[in-house]
Amino acid sequence: MKGNVIVGQSGGPTAAINSSLAGVYRTAKDRGAKKIYGMLHGIQGLMDERYIDLSEHITNELDAELLKRTPAAYLGSCRYKLPEIHENGEVYEKIFSILDKLEIEAFIYIGGNDSMDTIKKLSDYAIVTGHPTRFVGCPKTIDNDLALTDHTPGYGSAAKYIGTSVKEIIRDGFCLEYPHGLVSIIEVMGRNAGWLTGAAALAQGEDCTGPDLIYLPELPFDLQKFSERVKSLLSEKTSVVVAVSEGIKLDDGRYVCELGQSVDFVDAFGHKQLSGTAAYLASFIAGEIGCKTRAIEFSTLQRSASHSASRVDILEAYQVGGAAVKAADEGDSGKMVVIKRLSDDPYQSGTEVKDVHKIANDEKLVPREWVNIEGTYVTDEFVNYVKPLIQGDVSPVMVDGIPRHLYKPKTQK
Amino acid sequence: MKGNVIVGQSGGPTAAINSSLAGVYRTAKDRGAKKIYGMLHGIQGLMDERYIDLSEHITNELDAELLKRTPAAYLGSCRYKLPEIHENGEVYEKIFSILDKLEIEAFIYIGGNDSMDTIKKLSDYAIVTGHPTRFVGCPKTIDNDLALTDHTPGYGSAAKYIGTSVKEIIRDGFCLEYPHGLVSIIEVMGRNAGWLTGAAALAQGEDCTGPDLIYLPELPFDLQKFSERVKSLLSEKTSVVVAVSEGIKLDDGRYVCELGQSVDFVDAFGHKQLSGTAAYLASFIAGEIGCKTRAIEFSTLQRSASHSASRVDILEAYQVGGAAVKAADEGDSGKMVVIKRLSDDPYQSGTEVKDVHKIANDEKLVPREWVNIEGTYVTDEFVNYVKPLIQGDVSPVMVDGIPRHLYKPKTQK
Repeated sequence: MKGNVIVGQSGGPTAAINSSLAGVYRTAKDRGAKKIYGMLHGIQGLMDERYIDLSEHITNELDAELLKRTPAAYLGSCRYKLPEIHENGEVYEKIFSILDKLEIEAFIYIGGNDSMDTIKKLSDYAIVTGHPTRFVGCPKTIDNDLALTDHTPGYGSAAKYIGTSVKEIIRDGFCLEYPHGLVSIIEVMGRNAGWLTGAAALAQGEDCTGPDLIYLPELPFDLQKFSERVKSLLSEKTSVVVAVSEGIKLDDGRYVCELGQSVDFVDAFGHKQLSGTAAYLASFIAGEIGCKTRAIEFSTLQRSASHSASRVDILEAYQVGGAAVKAADEGDSGKMVVIKRLSDDPYQSGTEVKDVHKIANDEKLVPREWVNIEGTYVTDEFVNYVKPLIQGDVSPVMVDGIPRHLYKPKTQK
Repeated sequence: MKGNVIVGQSGGPTAAINSSLAGVYRTAKDRGAKKIYGMLHGIQGLMDERYIDLSEHITNELDAELLKRTPAAYLGSCRYKLPEIHENGEVYEKIFSILDKLEIEAFIYIGGNDSMDTIKKLSDYAIVTGHPTRFVGCPKTIDNDLALTDHTPGYGSAAKYIGTSVKEIIRDGFCLEYPHGLVSIIEVMGRNAGWLTGAAALAQGEDCTGPDLIYLPELPFDLQKFSERVKSLLSEKTSVVVAVSEGIKLDDGRYVCELGQSVDFVDAFGHKQLSGTAAYLASFIAGEIGCKTRAIEFSTLQRSASHSASRVDILEAYQVGGAAVKAADEGDSGKMVVIKRLSDDPYQSGTEVKDVHKIANDEKLVPREWVNIEGTYVTDEFVNYVKPLIQGDVSPVMVDGIPRHLYKPKTQK
């Protein structure tokens, strides 16, 4: 490379997104990039000329290792959708003038669907205007809902955390016996795609029966059938554990979390504060069956738990970052790096690049065949798909009993 | 030892309670106990003659290691308070007839306050009736609220999990910038004692500022002052993280979690379903300030996260189990093993036995001096007290990417 590289992070945090950043940095350095800039808070920050020189923050190999183990977007993230080029050319002029000023040869953006839309639009604009900067996307999302890639970095670590925590909750559930039994309802992220919720099945093994029911958002949810299944399970066991996606909906399209809506929770601005899906179902089941219930939300814990990251995930995230720089250096633009599964057992994967126009704004859902007929559990195919992605650990660098992260860039408030 | 030993677990699960069980088993075996029984679901299960022969379940050293890494009460637990001896002698006659049948020489009970009440009453009954069985308690509770012991096994691992997860949440909070800022409110267990909530301060280090505010249940909570403090913090930073105990109360004695009460959440049996403290405060702050808020409850995750247990905690739990058997073998009864801190730096501890009459039904709270004057953070003394207890890790035995636990006793449903 002869010029400079700029890299940004966008969308929701994950435990692996910084490993991709480390991969971008390392490969750009190895390929001779003069400067490697990091946008603070993605494209939105860049427009305000908020960026850092990464070499001032990753000063040695230990820093790079710490970065791989640091959760959430090191550079800060944003949720900003670029306007259509024909609607607002000024935004593009501004961005490209900053890129020119920084002499950017390669622009790498680590993110999900919306971020790939950014890559698409910027590379389109570069083509139209004959601008030499190359734009390559690097996939990232715990939701695993990106098209064309076998899976997305970030998903494996979140899945591992979910499998581990669900298993611990199942053990916890058997401790105390309640007269009418105990039902634990675990709410998992993924509003439209059930990849994360299905990962609850990873708790199953020789030493654990796994959760009793798993409900993905891809299929309509039936409250009465749910209640009957739980009742039937409680006649056989003292503790029932259910994993549900935050996005499960009734047949009529209403989100389950909307049913728990209560007047007290409308705030001063008139915003509805939705109570959680698990909270509603726990209350519903307590009312229907009279058993003890509890609601557990993994919330942000599942996307930021770098202390239990998957080694496969962190390594692949790193590779994908490097592959994005390589692709840009070799002349690719308007592309996203994807992961291709080469073999299941032993698991092997490699990277390719695909046209970002075929990826952006498309959502990959769990196939119907990977859920059982009743819609209450994922199949073995699902589990076989996920299992390789959670293998191996990344031992945190422990300092004084707590995992150490890389210092936050000082320019962040 | 010439006779048999029986051991039970009682009260809430922890990540370390099974390490105490492993310690009881090993020491009883080493000291020549013929049989080592485990009560299923504590004293309540014993009254129904539900017990197992532990040697059938811990068959080798690997089993013992797995047991130390298995969260929640391996034998199952109960929350059963024995009646006063003069009120219901029959219960005692029944228990002692079962002990006689099993030829029990030593009765070890691993638990918290209520469990120590059980040891007290059973040992009193034995004295009154001249019965030879000896009763010794083994402390256990994540709440760390037992008197006379420096700390309780289970607390260190929960504190380590809380410190680690709070740190990950803080990183997560800085990723996305919201127009009016983001306030994350984390709810931690401990209805009356703030030991666990205070552990949120462990997130603080060279690479992390720690949470911004910490509210313990020992001090009254003022909603308006809280709102003002958050508002002031939001003028300086984009993300504010607050740790609150589930048990914080207003000056008038009402729990904060009761304020969020809504009609929709009264179930069919007329039970009030309380929304959480964090959920209420998140809604309150959103209404007051108009910022983005989120509520995160650690719920059962904090007490069962054996995947991030503290080595000091797991080792001490094991030692305490062994010390309980030793004490009983040497003739002690009506005693509880306590941990004595011998030195802070380097940290060293040992065990002693104390009269259980001085422990049962007494609750150790965080001293006022260990909270700052404003009541919004714990002091360095608090942090110095906790820090040694979270040191070191217990690497989980990973099988197929997920921590392995010891098989559940088959007699449990």
